[in-house]
Amino acid sequence: MRDLPLPKVYALIEPGPVVLLTTAAKGRPNVMTMSWHMMVEFEPPLIACVVSSANYSFAALHAARECVIAIPPADIAEKVVAVGNCSGRDADKFAAFALTPLPAERVKAPLIAECFVNLECKFADTRLTNKYNLVVLEVVKAWTNPKRKGAKTIHHHGYGSFVVDGETIKLKSKMR
Amino acid sequence: MRDLPLPKVYALIEPGPVVLLTTAAKGRPNVMTMSWHMMVEFEPPLIACVVSSANYSFAALHAARECVIAIPPADIAEKVVAVGNCSGRDADKFAAFALTPLPAERVKAPLIAECFVNLECKFADTRLTNKYNLVVLEVVKAWTNPKRKGAKTIHHHGYGSFVVDGETIKLKSKMR
Repeated sequence: MRDLPLPKVYALIEPGPVVLLTTAAKGRPNVMTMSWHMMVEFEPPLIACVVSSANYSFAALHAARECVIAIPPADIAEKVVAVGNCSGRDADKFAAFALTPLPAERVKAPLIAECFVNLECKFADTRLTNKYNLVVLEVVKAWTNPKRKGAKTIHHHGYGSFVVDGETIKLKSKMR
Repeated sequence: MRDLPLPKVYALIEPGPVVLLTTAAKGRPNVMTMSWHMMVEFEPPLIACVVSSANYSFAALHAARECVIAIPPADIAEKVVAVGNCSGRDADKFAAFALTPLPAERVKAPLIAECFVNLECKFADTRLTNKYNLVVLEVVKAWTNPKRKGAKTIHHHGYGSFVVDGETIKLKSKMR
């Protein structure tokens, strides 16, 4: 994993890939699958996400007020879905799905070696947490695997249907 | 356009497509391109989005407290980017890009005939607007074009790079 400059983070989250979110509670790492997230600011990069209070990760996330958001490549889609199909209440998901936790630099939650992007995040705003389980996170450190640059990702269309990235097109855009 | 049941909305927004957002100020329709949005609740469907106060649409959006979010198919990607490259300050974008406004049922902002999904939205929460330009919208009425069901969409990877939907894969997911 190499350093990813923070101004480059938005271009990885904005397309809407399914991501993994890791937490650590009392030294015990856990991971969940997430699709409800968006960019809120370019720099420092802010990401809003919704983690249901029904998720086992919710308590660890809000206790630590930090997490890692990791972007999995499409070739581990089956693991990503399997992670989403069970709860950290019942299983050590890193062991169960042969995912490799790596120490992060600024947070206690682990990076995931099999993901091509890892974003270390701290809580920035919880005003919408009580009503919507929505948190605004600040990305404080970002990592990328240069060997997997441009890896294809998956997008969730509901009930087990996922679309894999197709062709890239270039259109002269003034959009950042 | 046919009625789209509200519980089906999330599966269209969750994958993270580039969307168009329409407003109407004093009877004048306008449209902008947007990629910072996410689902917040299944039903009634809530969508959070960030519309910069630097956008001409910001004033009309916040004056009316309603809008339409429309999902364009990939085959009009060039129009979608062109919409994002100019301002409603300077142009009637519906006329300039030959987009067809249609009357909505619950809001004054127009639907877009060329889009395969149109979501009529009203403001639900503006507590994060001052700090982040973030609004939580409630979808009050949704439309779909049955002839274009499953249309491919585009996803923005920054600076004029867009990825078109590729293959669909089915994985037994308990994720809704």
